[in-house]
Amino acid sequence: MSGDDYTVDYELSDADENVHHVWDNGLDPVLTVAPGEVVRFECRDALDGQVGPDSTAEDLANASFDPVHPLTGPVAVEGAEPGDVLVVELLEFEHKGWGFTGYMPGDMGLGLLPEEFPEAGLHVWELDDDVAHFVNDIEVPLGMFPGIAGVAPAEDGEHDTLPPRDVGGNMDVKHMTEGSTVYFPVKNEGALFSTGDCHAAQGDGEVCVTGIEAPMFVTARFELRKDVSIEQPQLETTGPFTPTGEDEPMYATTGIADDLMEATKKATRHMIDHLHEQHGLTRGEAYILCSAAMDLKISEVVDVPNWTVTAYMPESIVG
Amino acid sequence: MSGDDYTVDYELSDADENVHHVWDNGLDPVLTVAPGEVVRFECRDALDGQVGPDSTAEDLANASFDPVHPLTGPVAVEGAEPGDVLVVELLEFEHKGWGFTGYMPGDMGLGLLPEEFPEAGLHVWELDDDVAHFVNDIEVPLGMFPGIAGVAPAEDGEHDTLPPRDVGGNMDVKHMTEGSTVYFPVKNEGALFSTGDCHAAQGDGEVCVTGIEAPMFVTARFELRKDVSIEQPQLETTGPFTPTGEDEPMYATTGIADDLMEATKKATRHMIDHLHEQHGLTRGEAYILCSAAMDLKISEVVDVPNWTVTAYMPESIVG
Repeated sequence: MSGDDYTVDYELSDADENVHHVWDNGLDPVLTVAPGEVVRFECRDALDGQVGPDSTAEDLANASFDPVHPLTGPVAVEGAEPGDVLVVELLEFEHKGWGFTGYMPGDMGLGLLPEEFPEAGLHVWELDDDVAHFVNDIEVPLGMFPGIAGVAPAEDGEHDTLPPRDVGGNMDVKHMTEGSTVYFPVKNEGALFSTGDCHAAQGDGEVCVTGIEAPMFVTARFELRKDVSIEQPQLETTGPFTPTGEDEPMYATTGIADDLMEATKKATRHMIDHLHEQHGLTRGEAYILCSAAMDLKISEVVDVPNWTVTAYMPESIVG
Repeated sequence: MSGDDYTVDYELSDADENVHHVWDNGLDPVLTVAPGEVVRFECRDALDGQVGPDSTAEDLANASFDPVHPLTGPVAVEGAEPGDVLVVELLEFEHKGWGFTGYMPGDMGLGLLPEEFPEAGLHVWELDDDVAHFVNDIEVPLGMFPGIAGVAPAEDGEHDTLPPRDVGGNMDVKHMTEGSTVYFPVKNEGALFSTGDCHAAQGDGEVCVTGIEAPMFVTARFELRKDVSIEQPQLETTGPFTPTGEDEPMYATTGIADDLMEATKKATRHMIDHLHEQHGLTRGEAYILCSAAMDLKISEVVDVPNWTVTAYMPESIVG
């Protein structure tokens, strides 16, 4: 869809006047568009510039969460009313050449395995057109998408941007790739759409709490549907569903437990062990690589009392 | 790997003397093989013949769970000792032309959404070389694999075959396709490998509690590794990671909740609603199709306090 015929009707820069840091249906729209119009959003990175290309893990550990997440918007869509569905076609993404993946000090309790990583860790990625560069000459294929896309919630007042909600937000659905169409349930007049927290790539799970966090441009077209209603976001996507869009060899680790979260932790721990023992990564590097490129699938959720979650890593990435 | 050069060293039929119904490290092996040897297992269906090509939902509702699951084995591998890793190359699968997918009466509490389906439901599939036939001319591409593959547990005594465990068993990992290599932690001398509960296809999740349950032949080669140790099964696989092995358009529904199981239920309910409302399937048909062809991915498990699980259905399947 990046080759789709479209013209950008509006540019929204990431200047302060176009950026907000909480969800709030009382925010004035920074722009009002008609159905069919196209907006190019400039989006800041998730930490709002506190980590840059030259930062260290200590800089990450000292970052403030107050400005998380800076979102560009809100954009009002003419005619949108509560009960409608806002249709957002993701036309094109453009990164700015760098991104970062890191995990916070374990005592903050963030990420899937905070108990195993007491100290913060950080990798700053150089981004080419197709890949992101890691340690040991490892390359992760780009799979750009906005981690956050959503509309204003029904409930008045300020809402933290960290959790996703019925109206979307920080869903981190990696398959919201270029060419995807995402559907959101409208709760307020004008819908009030915002986006940000863009990722140059991410594994299903985003286990260390960050994807490849990258400032990016997001170009999107807006439409409305009044003939359907949905409870939570839905999407159409052509993937890719593997990092290269082909059925390449993967190494996979199972996590089997009587709790789905525990099964998820086990599968991830087993993959970190595998990458550390068989591929020479430190456990911190492995955690970061898993967050950027490992996919968590729910293999079965019915064989009582134990569930199977499986973690997949393309062998082409780790060699 | 089905084109791999191999010769079958042993055939194990599904006759009573080769079949067991519980995991038990005290069972005598029905066969002992040397590393490198190949066994062709004939495997009964999960309900041990209680449902056949002409069965109805009532037959399924009245089925006894006593014979679940009939497993072919155990096969002892010479030289296998506790602490080793048993390597099982899955060389080739062959179905017998039919399979079934069904859900039990809701009061049995089986499956992901028993509260929504009080009555049992059943579809018997005709299996071609490449596809399984559903209602409304819907075809599901075959993706054959053994739902159960594992070795005897460390703990003495009889163990139910329904839950998977550290030693594998009913893992239902759909990517254990032809050409995959699966690694199991050995807990007993000889390892004592068994397999069964084969599926002609299954979605990640197996939401209604059955894949396309099908009697099948499973041909596997055994090897041992003594230089590595694992806590739970691992595998190498080339997929396919989409039903056709290509990045085809998918429709996806998100499930967002503060509990991973609840997020999984929401994503599945939303897909059933979508298939019912947009594609004319009954909700029971949609539940069965989701179990056979819908993949559950953990999009994020870190954006406290809400997690995102996303359910994907290829549009080529539902038209």
